Amino acid sequence: MNKFSKQGAVNVVNNNILRERVMQEASLDPIAQKICMELDPPSLSNNQADVDKARQYLENVYGNIRIPLNIMQKLSSACKAGNWKISGIVGKRNSGWELIDAAEDHNIQSLYGIAVDIGTTTVVVYLIDMESGKIIDIQASYNKQVDFGEDILTRIFLAGDENGRQQMKNAAVETLNILIRQICERKNLKINEIYAAAVAGNSTMIHLLLGLDPSNICISPYIPVVNNPGFLTAGEVGLEINSGAPVYCLPGVGSYVGGDAVAGVLVSEMYKKKEVCLFVDIGTNGEIIMGNKDWLVACAGAAGPALEGGVAQSGMRAEPGAVEEVAINMDKEVQYKVIGDEKPKGICGSGLIDCLAQLFLAGLVDRGGKLTCEDYFVIVPGAESATGEDILVTQQDIDNLMRTKGAVSAALDYLVESVGVSLSELGYFYTAGAFGQYLNLESAVNIGLYPDLQRERMIRLGNSSGEGARLVLISDQKRKDLEAITKNITYFELNASNVFMNKFVSSKFLPHTNLDFFPTVKERLIKRGIISE
Amino acid sequence: MNKFSKQGAVNVVNNNILRERVMQEASLDPIAQKICMELDPPSLSNNQADVDKARQYLENVYGNIRIPLNIMQKLSSACKAGNWKISGIVGKRNSGWELIDAAEDHNIQSLYGIAVDIGTTTVVVYLIDMESGKIIDIQASYNKQVDFGEDILTRIFLAGDENGRQQMKNAAVETLNILIRQICERKNLKINEIYAAAVAGNSTMIHLLLGLDPSNICISPYIPVVNNPGFLTAGEVGLEINSGAPVYCLPGVGSYVGGDAVAGVLVSEMYKKKEVCLFVDIGTNGEIIMGNKDWLVACAGAAGPALEGGVAQSGMRAEPGAVEEVAINMDKEVQYKVIGDEKPKGICGSGLIDCLAQLFLAGLVDRGGKLTCEDYFVIVPGAESATGEDILVTQQDIDNLMRTKGAVSAALDYLVESVGVSLSELGYFYTAGAFGQYLNLESAVNIGLYPDLQRERMIRLGNSSGEGARLVLISDQKRKDLEAITKNITYFELNASNVFMNKFVSSKFLPHTNLDFFPTVKERLIKRGIISE
Repeated sequence: MNKFSKQGAVNVVNNNILRERVMQEASLDPIAQKICMELDPPSLSNNQADVDKARQYLENVYGNIRIPLNIMQKLSSACKAGNWKISGIVGKRNSGWELIDAAEDHNIQSLYGIAVDIGTTTVVVYLIDMESGKIIDIQASYNKQVDFGEDILTRIFLAGDENGRQQMKNAAVETLNILIRQICERKNLKINEIYAAAVAGNSTMIHLLLGLDPSNICISPYIPVVNNPGFLTAGEVGLEINSGAPVYCLPGVGSYVGGDAVAGVLVSEMYKKKEVCLFVDIGTNGEIIMGNKDWLVACAGAAGPALEGGVAQSGMRAEPGAVEEVAINMDKEVQYKVIGDEKPKGICGSGLIDCLAQLFLAGLVDRGGKLTCEDYFVIVPGAESATGEDILVTQQDIDNLMRTKGAVSAALDYLVESVGVSLSELGYFYTAGAFGQYLNLESAVNIGLYPDLQRERMIRLGNSSGEGARLVLISDQKRKDLEAITKNITYFELNASNVFMNKFVSSKFLPHTNLDFFPTVKERLIKRGIISE
Repeated sequence: MNKFSKQGAVNVVNNNILRERVMQEASLDPIAQKICMELDPPSLSNNQADVDKARQYLENVYGNIRIPLNIMQKLSSACKAGNWKISGIVGKRNSGWELIDAAEDHNIQSLYGIAVDIGTTTVVVYLIDMESGKIIDIQASYNKQVDFGEDILTRIFLAGDENGRQQMKNAAVETLNILIRQICERKNLKINEIYAAAVAGNSTMIHLLLGLDPSNICISPYIPVVNNPGFLTAGEVGLEINSGAPVYCLPGVGSYVGGDAVAGVLVSEMYKKKEVCLFVDIGTNGEIIMGNKDWLVACAGAAGPALEGGVAQSGMRAEPGAVEEVAINMDKEVQYKVIGDEKPKGICGSGLIDCLAQLFLAGLVDRGGKLTCEDYFVIVPGAESATGEDILVTQQDIDNLMRTKGAVSAALDYLVESVGVSLSELGYFYTAGAFGQYLNLESAVNIGLYPDLQRERMIRLGNSSGEGARLVLISDQKRKDLEAITKNITYFELNASNVFMNKFVSSKFLPHTNLDFFPTVKERLIKRGIISE
């Protein structure tokens, strides 16, 4: 039994190598910008008004620009105080720009924005220096909407009436404002000197954040209120940063492929590649996007809550005390790793996947996903656990996992067949999210959740949702790329497909009905004598 | 002695002939517009989100368009309720448009906007049907800022600090909101179904309405915070009409030639004429704009408060009971007209001008403006007056009037000389405002306040300020014309001119130092034996 320490509670994952690679390619052109202006001081022969003069100056640089009423006085006072040398911040709008702050001389020193990954469970806020593109600080917490219901369907139901919708919105907005305030306090920044925000989330999370009714997301024909809200302002959304700050929510493709998933296409740059690539983000839904520079298709399968804490009998979130890695040898001996320096309390999603893979490879679970011995398997005996009770995996837990695995691999098969590409032709396979980051790759392949590709072509993107938000915050080209991507993606609505349902029913085999699609798994099974050649 | 009835308290003057002439020329293209959309209902094969679909539809019609967050839910609900047949209102922005309301089917029936003339003393609100361009209703009242000070300098002083500025703004906004509510109640309209506003006022009034510091308007080099605020929204300004409604304040040229004066150029269409024309608006300041289709010059002279109620010894506002017309024959017999069916209480501005002109023509005031008999002249003996006291004109009153007349005619001479045009070359002479409307034209010429032109070329525009607001409300071409006019006007700052000061000092002659400029007056004076040929 090994233990190792890891950042608990909320896993904020950053694939630094990837980030720096993308950084170099993203030319800095943030959605809020700082500008210093030296205007001609007025005289009797030059009686242009302060605001008109500044507007003319800004129009020469930015084209269409609006100076809102709440900035006019500040701008004029800054002109006088700075002898017509002033600095300003402009924020992007759907068309043109708006002056959102002004100060005398060079009194606006920094240019910070925030990138947000708003998940059903976890919300992460990144403080970004928009002049360098760098992440300056990170803060994460649970989404306060969890108080109203852990699962997303409960929240969708509650938000069906105006009162509940307001509660959901307030919870999301408050979660963000608290995180932003925490970062600002730590960095000694004024919150209204944060000048932009980019937000990535699934369609429901974006609807709830914006106070929009998500009811139709789960009613055929599954039409959201909006997929691309465009540039909003912090004032409109309720964020406490500068009220005129542009707030850009990454556009989604449909009810079940939101901006958080499309961000993966942007971050992986699969939309620029010749090879056909696959992007998978597994949460409550498994979102899958496939394609290359010429075409993109997407679908989503309801993966179910099997991997979420509290569903499996010994299940828990990926917090300190959670078993996150498991190995079982042919003698049924178990090794496990626990998050943090604690006695084990339960088992998290990545631990469960490990369990199923290891039980399968040890011959303790058959290809149909049934335990061959008893109807449970003890991972940690009560003597070693924090509670004194066994930490175990039940047949029920495995059935749930098989449904999740089945939904994802059926969706994957469906896409692959629809476009006439075979899994072996895939160039790269990308996974997203903290789950994708900590999940044991071999285990995921062993149970057929991931395709069996060359391992160097299987790339973990880390928090590609947050990273996508950072990219559109600092690069207008990336934002335009993202909008082009959403327009180019063909979305398959699996809820309405009989072909998919048939695939789903027949997909509950480990690792797949056709074992030849999984050559390395086949080899292992043969080596261990689970199957014959 | 004659009496006749006239609309009292606030004189809302509409030159109907002029308005209808202009109407025909203004192609209807209002700053808020109604649009009916028939969108494709969604299906499994057409999963475009409601807001995205409407935006695409609107972009095909209006180009750049923004759908703000507060309309998204309403729009989506209207789609469902109206089976994707919806109506919407779009409001103009500096660049592009914004959707400001949405409803199912054809549930948005009317398209009303308001045109506002915000004067130092009087505020007039016109309800405009933006689909026909017609005035539907009018409501006027005193500007609530009067409570803080009748004269504009007091208010500028008070607005120098933030607290006073807020008070001034609140007073102006409240004045407008009350007037709008009164109209809406009368017409059975919801106030948030008023979808646009255009506001004309002098630079100080616009600054105070918008909560901007007007202090620099009266400090050299006389630079306002803003001359052209562009399109604001009702929410920004504080008007209770639809919060997204565009609010357009007519741009001014300088601290002393505001949008209310430039409106006169638009309404008179002098900017399209070959002949050199002159526009004069006499209030606390005398604003003068001269020019034609090729060039325009403007200046303003501090006319002083001589014509305002409460300054002259028997002075009062043009309310019921005010003597507004006076005739004096060579036997010093007086005839007068009173506003309303009341006994005379005092004398208003137009009555004072009549007095001076009649006293001059009767030989009771000399060319230097001095009473030749006593140092006062009784217009209404106490026996006929409401108070039992004489209503009279004093030498002091005449001195004040001479200053006003001098300021205006010196400014006029200055402009004429600066551009090398003689008064006799003028094509048309336009006067603005209620004062210009009721003032006896002959009296104004007799004392040299107006130039001595052919009478059919002297045109009273009525409330050209309000009319200009109506025009830009309903015609984007007129708005563009107005902005082009402000850019083309060369502004002369008289406060800084020695030449003007010399003219001012020498201008206090009746009607002018050079009597040949006033041939009809000269003829009258000869006829009456006041002067010899």
